[in-house]
Amino acid sequence: MRISRRGQVDPFIVMDVLRAARMAEEAGRHIIHMEIGQPATPAPAAARKALARAMEQDALGYTVALGLPELRRGIAALYARWYGIDLNPDRVIVTSGSSAAFLLSFTTLFDAGDRVGLGEPGYPSYRQILRALSLDPVGLPASDANRLQPVPADFADVDLAGLIVASPGNPSGTMLDKPRLADLIHAAQARGISFISDEIYHGLHYATRAVTALEVSDNVHIINSFSKYFSMTGWRIGWMVVPEDQIRTVERLAQNMFICPPHASQIAALAALDCIDELEANRATYAENRRLMLQGLPKAGFTSIAPPDGAFYIYADVSDLTGDSLAFAAEILDGAGVAVTPGLDFDPRRGGQRLRFSYAGATADIVEGLARLQTFMQGRKA
Amino acid sequence: MRISRRGQVDPFIVMDVLRAARMAEEAGRHIIHMEIGQPATPAPAAARKALARAMEQDALGYTVALGLPELRRGIAALYARWYGIDLNPDRVIVTSGSSAAFLLSFTTLFDAGDRVGLGEPGYPSYRQILRALSLDPVGLPASDANRLQPVPADFADVDLAGLIVASPGNPSGTMLDKPRLADLIHAAQARGISFISDEIYHGLHYATRAVTALEVSDNVHIINSFSKYFSMTGWRIGWMVVPEDQIRTVERLAQNMFICPPHASQIAALAALDCIDELEANRATYAENRRLMLQGLPKAGFTSIAPPDGAFYIYADVSDLTGDSLAFAAEILDGAGVAVTPGLDFDPRRGGQRLRFSYAGATADIVEGLARLQTFMQGRKA
Repeated sequence: MRISRRGQVDPFIVMDVLRAARMAEEAGRHIIHMEIGQPATPAPAAARKALARAMEQDALGYTVALGLPELRRGIAALYARWYGIDLNPDRVIVTSGSSAAFLLSFTTLFDAGDRVGLGEPGYPSYRQILRALSLDPVGLPASDANRLQPVPADFADVDLAGLIVASPGNPSGTMLDKPRLADLIHAAQARGISFISDEIYHGLHYATRAVTALEVSDNVHIINSFSKYFSMTGWRIGWMVVPEDQIRTVERLAQNMFICPPHASQIAALAALDCIDELEANRATYAENRRLMLQGLPKAGFTSIAPPDGAFYIYADVSDLTGDSLAFAAEILDGAGVAVTPGLDFDPRRGGQRLRFSYAGATADIVEGLARLQTFMQGRKA
Repeated sequence: MRISRRGQVDPFIVMDVLRAARMAEEAGRHIIHMEIGQPATPAPAAARKALARAMEQDALGYTVALGLPELRRGIAALYARWYGIDLNPDRVIVTSGSSAAFLLSFTTLFDAGDRVGLGEPGYPSYRQILRALSLDPVGLPASDANRLQPVPADFADVDLAGLIVASPGNPSGTMLDKPRLADLIHAAQARGISFISDEIYHGLHYATRAVTALEVSDNVHIINSFSKYFSMTGWRIGWMVVPEDQIRTVERLAQNMFICPPHASQIAALAALDCIDELEANRATYAENRRLMLQGLPKAGFTSIAPPDGAFYIYADVSDLTGDSLAFAAEILDGAGVAVTPGLDFDPRRGGQRLRFSYAGATADIVEGLARLQTFMQGRKA
């Protein structure tokens, strides 16, 4: 049986860390997980209750491909609440997580061989999904001076059909303010480059709120998700916002490629939109975790860190400590019992000198993890 | 914003029927749905109970990309129960419905421009998913003599990288016995054509059980789903079986393209595997519905029908009644208040003279639908 070339995507390097962490746990060791990019909290209580109720009353068969109309209206209302934007619900496409949204966005916009730019460091799956669709990912190294977010100069001389930008970024947690986001969108649009804005960490900010690309232009693709702020990773439910003249195209692709997003997850997501108190309590936990990390990591010797604007990651420059972040992560796992993510998955060029610390866990685990890191790093110096 | 060529997939023609049916219902009219390809029953009671329990106890975050190990083991055990096959659970890949399974199968096996054969009539989304992935669908007209299933002669002179076969077929409901399935697989393998076996209607048979391609060869892709026999369409949960040497490739693609299948749906699916009594009661309902249809459709004047071996469809040749199945379906909807599917989505060449009747609904609706069809067709003749 012949295997395709496009199926030969890179493995996640972090998987080696995850496997080692799991093996350590199976051997009876207690591991603090600072490698995981998901909330420790479940879906909001009212969301789970809504689904439990629906399961008693409804067969939960297929929904229409673009999602339950009331959910699309609820998401549109979120744009009024969060950004003061009046969004036509018809432009909201409910998807099976942001994963399906990327597949729909890329197939709607790009043909085989098209080149799509992405800032480095960035979410590693962009690159692999593009490859799986016979597209050509083009890494754009972002500078520390620009807080690891791309600027127009980074792609001024690069031939591109599309550009993906994430604010807050993963792994950096940095955000683009409105002028910087507008610069990127206008530079892309001036050259006919389709702009895709990954906004899956919106809602999780620690000072000013994130800016949506819709505040700059209607002629973009927005990707968002219930995974992070709404604490629903495993439910695989997200959404896109697309220009009005693309709704029919995306609908046809969605009908054929996915039939519909999971009905149960749509029910839960609809109820989650109203769980503001519980979700804001989660955010307060992240804010406290972030405060502890910004205090504790430098004490452990990770001094080159920038306070993140949003999401739940700190991306540390560890070039003073190692040139091999994979070996260093393995050493920290073994020596401290703390799992962290080497930067290589996010940035093939400079990731060997970076580590990503997640603070999505419970505060008690953050406290314990930081204590372990401090002890371990002290021993390493000695 | 530029739109891709591959995003320009065909609309479903049935959507016009669905829209007209919905409008009639909104205007207060009662419509019998014989166009819908999904069970009227919900997920089994124990499956819903298992999820309700899990929601109280577990955060239901991401699972590993290939699915919960206990679910993969449970599916492997189904191959022993259904076919007497000893299947390595590592070869079972849990997916977000058969939709995700097709995306994974096609990206694993084929590169942009590859030609993939599919029997006509057949599931229309094969063609559209292939196009969205920059692949080239090649329709292979199947003959009535071969009960609308492909035979090796149908692609003897056709250059193909892959072949998709469904048994029981949709819309035909016909099955391939083991010698015929083996003929197809061996003919494909002799020419290096990757064989994909769509087995999503397995479990729903009315005489002998369906044969899985795994009874013929391990060197195939199996696509299956909890949607039909297990009555879980809206849960978007299915699976693939792949050769051992492709597991790692599919895993990497699944990690990047989907992260994981919906956790809640995996919990429900695991429990559904044991709900034999409830599922066999559903099957008995379909068997009774099928009996009523085979009796009632000829009385209404649909005389050219073949008894289906499996699934829950009857595909009628209506060439003696119309040359325009779309207009005829509209006429039946308007005149009889029964929604049926014109054959055009399944077979661009001959579908203008075919209608698909689904008997997945409740028996009372089948009885009422048949009575309406008889009255309407009598009036039409007069």
